[in-house]
Amino acid sequence: MKHCPTCGNTVRYRIPPGDQRERAVCSECGQIHYQNPRIIAGCVVEHAGLLLLCRRAIEPRRGYWTHPAGFMELGETLQHAAARETREEALAEVQIGSMLTVTNVLHTGQVHIHFRGTLAEPVFGCGTESLDVKLFEESRIPWDEIAFQSVEFSLRRFLEDRRLGRESLHFLDIP
Amino acid sequence: MKHCPTCGNTVRYRIPPGDQRERAVCSECGQIHYQNPRIIAGCVVEHAGLLLLCRRAIEPRRGYWTHPAGFMELGETLQHAAARETREEALAEVQIGSMLTVTNVLHTGQVHIHFRGTLAEPVFGCGTESLDVKLFEESRIPWDEIAFQSVEFSLRRFLEDRRLGRESLHFLDIP
Repeated sequence: MKHCPTCGNTVRYRIPPGDQRERAVCSECGQIHYQNPRIIAGCVVEHAGLLLLCRRAIEPRRGYWTHPAGFMELGETLQHAAARETREEALAEVQIGSMLTVTNVLHTGQVHIHFRGTLAEPVFGCGTESLDVKLFEESRIPWDEIAFQSVEFSLRRFLEDRRLGRESLHFLDIP
Repeated sequence: MKHCPTCGNTVRYRIPPGDQRERAVCSECGQIHYQNPRIIAGCVVEHAGLLLLCRRAIEPRRGYWTHPAGFMELGETLQHAAARETREEALAEVQIGSMLTVTNVLHTGQVHIHFRGTLAEPVFGCGTESLDVKLFEESRIPWDEIAFQSVEFSLRRFLEDRRLGRESLHFLDIP
């Protein structure tokens, strides 16, 4: 941030009174602009024991596989965001279940929050952000072509918990 | 947002190609500026069966009681954020435990994520954002003076789970 989003004048980075961190402070109107982590919401989608994966049509990691996930928007809940991403990327109506993983991605300033989800019917398709969408047996999951570390973490914990007959919540920190 | 944080020229709100929502798009440099929900991280802090509450010295809700909580910062995990807020507001070193509640606050564009936490020793004090910090027995919690709905939700679920000998994760949506 170089300019104040409110008045357009230049900002300076300094620690406001009572604060502990440098913030972008407008040199004209004095407004303080905070920058905070963003939330990625997503879900591991299961149907009849198979997992729904999308091959990304967009950067980053175009051509790699992921479960549905993307930036949470203003005005929606975490669960709505995960369901909306599933609708957009896989043209599917998912039922959101328990929370599966929370990944703190420090270098990108993101928190990835993934849920368990189920498809009542095997009705899905290829959204504009996907090159391909498929249901995979566990033994056919393309582990060498998974888009993101948080997605691999979620898929592995999902499968492990399923074998153990439990639904735990798992944490991962990526420096 | 009225001005581009990168170049300072005016932004217009329109739906970029391939998007579904209006975004602030710079009329000069074309950059798209996304606005997303922010995370509040916090924790219900227990010591010897008592709960640590802080009376807020700052707005909003100055004079009302809360457990430690505040905006997550870039470069920290959810758990670090909850522990830092406890350090700042209550001058206490908390051990963060399981996730307790997730509250989607739609009207403020926030997600409040609260953990269970424990103080090994009853060492705490009054941070600059607090008027008072105290350990409360369950029967003495000032329910009529709790600062936020998500905080009351967390305190009630914490106590309920403690009675039932479990550590569940609970969700609340505030429209």
